[in-house]
Amino acid sequence: MGKCVNHPDRETPYLCMKHQTYLCEECLECKDPKIYCKHRSACPIWFMSKRKENWDAEDKNAATAAADCTVTFQPDGQTVSVPAGSTLLEAAQAADVHVNASCNGKGSCGKCKLVVASGAVESPPTPLLTDAEKKKGYVLACQSRITGDVSVQIPEEALQKKLKIAGMGQAVTEQLSGMVTEIDPMLKQVPLTLAPPTLEDSVSDLDRLNRGLKKEGCDVNRMNVGIKVMRQLAEAVRQDNWNITASVIRRKCANEILEVRPGNGAQPSLGLAIDIGTTTIVVYLVDMTDGRVLAATAGHNRQADCGDDVINRIVCAEKNGVKKLSRMALATINSLIGEALDSAGAKADAVRNVVVSGNTTMAHLLLQIEPRYIRRDPYIPTVSEFPILKAGEIGLKANPMGAVFIMPGPASYVGGDIVSGVLYTGFHREDLTTLFIDIGTNGEIVIGNREWMMTAACSAGPAFEGGGIRWGMRAEEGAIEKITIDPHSLEPTLSTVGDAPARGICGSGMIDLIAELMRTGIVDRSGRFVDMAGKRRVRQQGDEPAYVLAFADETPMEEDIVFTASDLKNLIYSKGAVYAGFTTLLGEAGMNFSMVDRIIITGGFGQYLNIERAVAIGLLPDIDRAKFNYMGNSSIAGAYMALLSGQYRQEAREICNTMTYVDFSSNPRYMDEFTSACFLPHTDLNAFPSVATPN
Amino acid sequence: MGKCVNHPDRETPYLCMKHQTYLCEECLECKDPKIYCKHRSACPIWFMSKRKENWDAEDKNAATAAADCTVTFQPDGQTVSVPAGSTLLEAAQAADVHVNASCNGKGSCGKCKLVVASGAVESPPTPLLTDAEKKKGYVLACQSRITGDVSVQIPEEALQKKLKIAGMGQAVTEQLSGMVTEIDPMLKQVPLTLAPPTLEDSVSDLDRLNRGLKKEGCDVNRMNVGIKVMRQLAEAVRQDNWNITASVIRRKCANEILEVRPGNGAQPSLGLAIDIGTTTIVVYLVDMTDGRVLAATAGHNRQADCGDDVINRIVCAEKNGVKKLSRMALATINSLIGEALDSAGAKADAVRNVVVSGNTTMAHLLLQIEPRYIRRDPYIPTVSEFPILKAGEIGLKANPMGAVFIMPGPASYVGGDIVSGVLYTGFHREDLTTLFIDIGTNGEIVIGNREWMMTAACSAGPAFEGGGIRWGMRAEEGAIEKITIDPHSLEPTLSTVGDAPARGICGSGMIDLIAELMRTGIVDRSGRFVDMAGKRRVRQQGDEPAYVLAFADETPMEEDIVFTASDLKNLIYSKGAVYAGFTTLLGEAGMNFSMVDRIIITGGFGQYLNIERAVAIGLLPDIDRAKFNYMGNSSIAGAYMALLSGQYRQEAREICNTMTYVDFSSNPRYMDEFTSACFLPHTDLNAFPSVATPN
Repeated sequence: MGKCVNHPDRETPYLCMKHQTYLCEECLECKDPKIYCKHRSACPIWFMSKRKENWDAEDKNAATAAADCTVTFQPDGQTVSVPAGSTLLEAAQAADVHVNASCNGKGSCGKCKLVVASGAVESPPTPLLTDAEKKKGYVLACQSRITGDVSVQIPEEALQKKLKIAGMGQAVTEQLSGMVTEIDPMLKQVPLTLAPPTLEDSVSDLDRLNRGLKKEGCDVNRMNVGIKVMRQLAEAVRQDNWNITASVIRRKCANEILEVRPGNGAQPSLGLAIDIGTTTIVVYLVDMTDGRVLAATAGHNRQADCGDDVINRIVCAEKNGVKKLSRMALATINSLIGEALDSAGAKADAVRNVVVSGNTTMAHLLLQIEPRYIRRDPYIPTVSEFPILKAGEIGLKANPMGAVFIMPGPASYVGGDIVSGVLYTGFHREDLTTLFIDIGTNGEIVIGNREWMMTAACSAGPAFEGGGIRWGMRAEEGAIEKITIDPHSLEPTLSTVGDAPARGICGSGMIDLIAELMRTGIVDRSGRFVDMAGKRRVRQQGDEPAYVLAFADETPMEEDIVFTASDLKNLIYSKGAVYAGFTTLLGEAGMNFSMVDRIIITGGFGQYLNIERAVAIGLLPDIDRAKFNYMGNSSIAGAYMALLSGQYRQEAREICNTMTYVDFSSNPRYMDEFTSACFLPHTDLNAFPSVATPN
Repeated sequence: MGKCVNHPDRETPYLCMKHQTYLCEECLECKDPKIYCKHRSACPIWFMSKRKENWDAEDKNAATAAADCTVTFQPDGQTVSVPAGSTLLEAAQAADVHVNASCNGKGSCGKCKLVVASGAVESPPTPLLTDAEKKKGYVLACQSRITGDVSVQIPEEALQKKLKIAGMGQAVTEQLSGMVTEIDPMLKQVPLTLAPPTLEDSVSDLDRLNRGLKKEGCDVNRMNVGIKVMRQLAEAVRQDNWNITASVIRRKCANEILEVRPGNGAQPSLGLAIDIGTTTIVVYLVDMTDGRVLAATAGHNRQADCGDDVINRIVCAEKNGVKKLSRMALATINSLIGEALDSAGAKADAVRNVVVSGNTTMAHLLLQIEPRYIRRDPYIPTVSEFPILKAGEIGLKANPMGAVFIMPGPASYVGGDIVSGVLYTGFHREDLTTLFIDIGTNGEIVIGNREWMMTAACSAGPAFEGGGIRWGMRAEEGAIEKITIDPHSLEPTLSTVGDAPARGICGSGMIDLIAELMRTGIVDRSGRFVDMAGKRRVRQQGDEPAYVLAFADETPMEEDIVFTASDLKNLIYSKGAVYAGFTTLLGEAGMNFSMVDRIIITGGFGQYLNIERAVAIGLLPDIDRAKFNYMGNSSIAGAYMALLSGQYRQEAREICNTMTYVDFSSNPRYMDEFTSACFLPHTDLNAFPSVATPN
């Protein structure tokens, strides 16, 4: 039993394991996003609610209603039939029309703007559209319900954005150029000119083919061949006078001839590097002949409809079947591949090599492999090192026999994305000892060098990504990302993403905010608000103190944006979990921070992180700032390297096998370290000599 | 241009390359089996005939007629709908009811007896049924056309015959017992008890499985695993508390985990050894735990409808598609497997290992691999050494993932059946030099020892199997198989298969006959009939001399059974082709018969061969008779050995690779040897010192 986060006077049994917050029955049943529902899909409590069943029933009713409205999307003219009452966003998804919807239909990002050309749509008033936009007929796709046939226009700026994403290619190519010197794909097109048979040289067609492949350096002793190839072989070799092209896939266990085509002219050969993030999916389309990135696309993982973090995805897979989650990820991936192919003017059939990097849950869900034991003690993944698969058996938009390498992951909570990241940073080849960190809902940590590697994961919770924080949000338009507080007036100076009116606060903003609250003495080292009677920015919110970031008249929602004592507590838990992860893992390795030569930060959250402020609140250790490096999305970069190079694919397997995984869930040292880290910056101030303490 | 074999006064351009006989237009168009049609499907001329197209059209008309008659087969009650005008045999085949039809519906063997219980059937009069049988309602299934709904009874004796075939098991087990000492199947059921995971030992389920397999001696470094197994793995290992059974297939190139089942109790494990002969298919059902042959079945290859020899099968595959030929072979194989399983009370799903032995054409047709280049210069098979396939992809009645090993064959006309035969005889492991021969339509020859092997094939033509011989037939009921001719009266003493009235002459009978014709001076060394005016047994038949084996009143057909000068010429060509094969291959190896330590004769024809008579006519060499060994169906015996033993499968591959193939088709030495061998016994009498020459 605990107090409801929205109604502190109410005792309730519904505790969210993630957010460490209680919700009363009313809040559980409430659909108001401001109170609870904005995190509804992220919070396990939601799954416990009776009300949930009612919503399910409502959803079902809607689904079984007759499909009676036709929606046409211009300028390309796609049409789709959807039930009346569907949103324009749902219609767009059903029609496979790309509409930017960062918040996945929650009505908070304001990015899914469409123009209604004709027809019946009910759109509630929204502060996210300007008057000028409203006049032009703009609506938010996720908020607009279809009541009859309708024709909508995708605005120019959205189309341009699509092209701008595709244009990422050149920059990415430059960033990655030189990473791979010898291109060596899994599935090779081997052009051959065979000597025609004679009475004196009458070996079988297959032996002749193998002889040709051997000359090209293929290991024919470990070569398999399927019945399909044997059936096509006799005609294929004779059609163009013994000039042929063999498609040969190289696996760790054995090679295989997948296809034999007449003729041996050059064919376009493309590859895909895919990073399946829990939130964002990134796709690079690569020319396999020279390593150029022809197009790069990114989009929200549609699985987000089933929850923000991997635990909720697994829960959803247990409830609805793993196939559903697989299809959702594939919908995003294939739509991104389609965009990339379109912008490069290429066909899916030319894609014969794919590398997928993702955490263990993402990999299991994509392949429809049972994920349920990932979240149950003792946290066992079904597969760590995946065999090379075929694109067709996964359902990827590529040549069906295209080779797919899944980055191996050593543990349930340290996956292929981390191995891929290590591969990119290259510290597994160096003598220097590196601490590699990827902070998100899960914080993954690797420490080591060419000799050894240890890894662990700590559950930071969703606070850094806006979850469990009353006004928390992702780093999207309107998110407060930088804050300075005047020490005298306590008035803040804010900067927001896109310089839009403030709509919430994102992770980097929260770190800034806490550092400033400390510096200005608004909160003390234990995370308590100091009494600031008479200051208009510090006030009671319900029965707890809060700092007002923005007043109602400054926000599009016309509500105060506040940061409460509970929010602060959640964030301290999150940063404490991450920092305890560092110290515990170092301790397990018999090390301390002074022995770390370099810290590499990767992942989306790291991009906006102010190192100084992160040290100030005790999220990052207080060591020489020159040792910190931010290396961006290392998961996609490692996937790109493995796509082009057999050596790197082998290194990825070796990294996975070298890593010793340390489990924190039952580790008493971790519990102690966590308790010590739930201070600002830490109970042990000696560990943070450069941090000026406020009181 | 040449003279028609039936009408020697007529010049005709239609020459049969196989039978070396001409047929006039009338004979080509004629449907009378006594004149021509009894070999119709065996003779390539048939394919050249204009009339053929008309027959095709008729067949098509029949096929498109409405299916309007229902046929019920008792005692099991199978029913089938067929067009009016179909034969009962066709109906039985459509209903998958086993009816013994040795002659494949030619109306000559009299074995397809059924009893019409009720309904409308038109059966022409036949001498192959006794009056008592006719009274009981017996008809010949192949001669009886259905005109309305009909119910037929399969006679008791036919049902018993089925069981008698299945009873072969014990005898075969005794014959093969001791051949394999260590059983080592391709697809192994590996029972495992895995240690349940803990936080300290948290490797993935797949790694845990591989760890278990490694303990059992499996090479997990070369282990592949498909997405299906990864999807079933998590549940399978947990369902029975980490007791599981893994199905692991061992291939030359790599191993693969095919399935994981909960529980690790013993499961029935069966295997099949299959010999696909051009004429006869033999199936052994084997207990893989102890090597016992549980059942053995044999039947006519249904492909025989498309011609008796491999060339005609290939022609038919080019015309009708290779799928059709594959389905025909599979129909026979699967029906035989079904019989074997029934008699052993086993299920197809328990069959997880299969070895198939057959000549190169049979293997290609079964697998639907293009066979057309086998019969075209330079005679190239598509595949010599087949990878291990799965029963499901071939269509065999077995567990779909059952492993199928196809015996490798070194050349287009020396196939896996010969390799299998060599494996069984074991001379590839011995110092003695062995000449291995398998005489049929094609004569295959291997010479060698543990150091080396040479092989070749010679086209003997179908004469030994009754083809191209006016009264030739297979060794079926009524076939003359032994003959003695009184040197004074020239009257023969005949013995027939089954002691039935003579209906024709089979291969062993012909060899006897020629030896006797030589001994009694009826023919001279050059194969000419000596003038025997006044002897009633030697007379003119058309414009050529002939020996009368039986007069019309002694035969069921009420016609004279004669052996003409043309028949003799065909047989001399056949035996000359085989003997020339021996001498040419020995010559290529720099050897002569005195250096041969042993001659092994295998194959169905060899079983009835009188060695002394075969030497007398110059088919076999005149060497110490003690050197001759008959070893039966060595192809199925070798398949049985390879089924049980990995060592033998490896030896089969080595035999195939060791063999040097010598092509005779353009070999001038062979042409010379053939010419010399077209005498009785040979132009070089020194080679046949023991043969008393008649004149």
